Amino acid sequence: MNPSASRQGSRYSVTELGAIEAWKGYTAEVASLPGIKVPGKFFLHPVLGLTGMEISVNCLPAGVKVPFYHTHRMHEELYLFIKGNGQFQVDGDIIEIREGTTLRVAPAGERTWRNNSQEDLYYIVIQAPVGGLAAAGTEDGVTVQRKVVWPA
Amino acid sequence: MNPSASRQGSRYSVTELGAIEAWKGYTAEVASLPGIKVPGKFFLHPVLGLTGMEISVNCLPAGVKVPFYHTHRMHEELYLFIKGNGQFQVDGDIIEIREGTTLRVAPAGERTWRNNSQEDLYYIVIQAPVGGLAAAGTEDGVTVQRKVVWPA
Repeated sequence: MNPSASRQGSRYSVTELGAIEAWKGYTAEVASLPGIKVPGKFFLHPVLGLTGMEISVNCLPAGVKVPFYHTHRMHEELYLFIKGNGQFQVDGDIIEIREGTTLRVAPAGERTWRNNSQEDLYYIVIQAPVGGLAAAGTEDGVTVQRKVVWPA
Repeated sequence: MNPSASRQGSRYSVTELGAIEAWKGYTAEVASLPGIKVPGKFFLHPVLGLTGMEISVNCLPAGVKVPFYHTHRMHEELYLFIKGNGQFQVDGDIIEIREGTTLRVAPAGERTWRNNSQEDLYYIVIQAPVGGLAAAGTEDGVTVQRKVVWPA
């Protein structure tokens, strides 16, 4: 069963994904396959009410490959691999992936990936409009001039 | 030493972060503290050439708290906790954090967090302009009508 919203305030929302191994049991609906639930993928946008980015957590089981290439219309994508091994393709280039591999793909890059290992592959995919970043690093942040208080 | 770009194509870039425990040794420069390198934080935007989002990987050691509250001007933030335990505050509400906790914070939310546990806390922070998402889920994606080919 997919995670649901666990807590919400006027300026925040929280969802518990559980241990990383739980990602394998989650499912996603995808626009091109109405009625089909894709296993090992869960989008956070609906449960968290995200408005600036979409994020999915993913598990591709040992030996499984994504059966298509895809591109994007507007969105830059970032893949962050958390656990396991595999291979990624962009425009025919092959990139080895492992724990800690991070991969940016521009909208027009033709991408696919596979888990050609013996263990499950866990990763996060984030998308946001290319060129939309207002400021990088900490430049968009504002420090609040008030002492931090925690309950004893 | 911080990771550097490991590979680049015309429509992609790759950086290897290594094992999650390595995040503790990385450093970040922050706009409000010129000349200071903040330990346990690394921004991916510069090495990957991200244009739509900023992402950092982070380690807050056992017993350490962030010494200030902060807000954002334009950016929505998403915190994804990978390993460890702690507490998060938004506008005075206290939220317990653990492996798998995901937390969206709107720009004006006054936030801080602490690791009040005995083990290091590892997490990812993503920021992108609030309201900027062009389409959610897979709706921005386009399937390429070409058979996937992998070398034997």
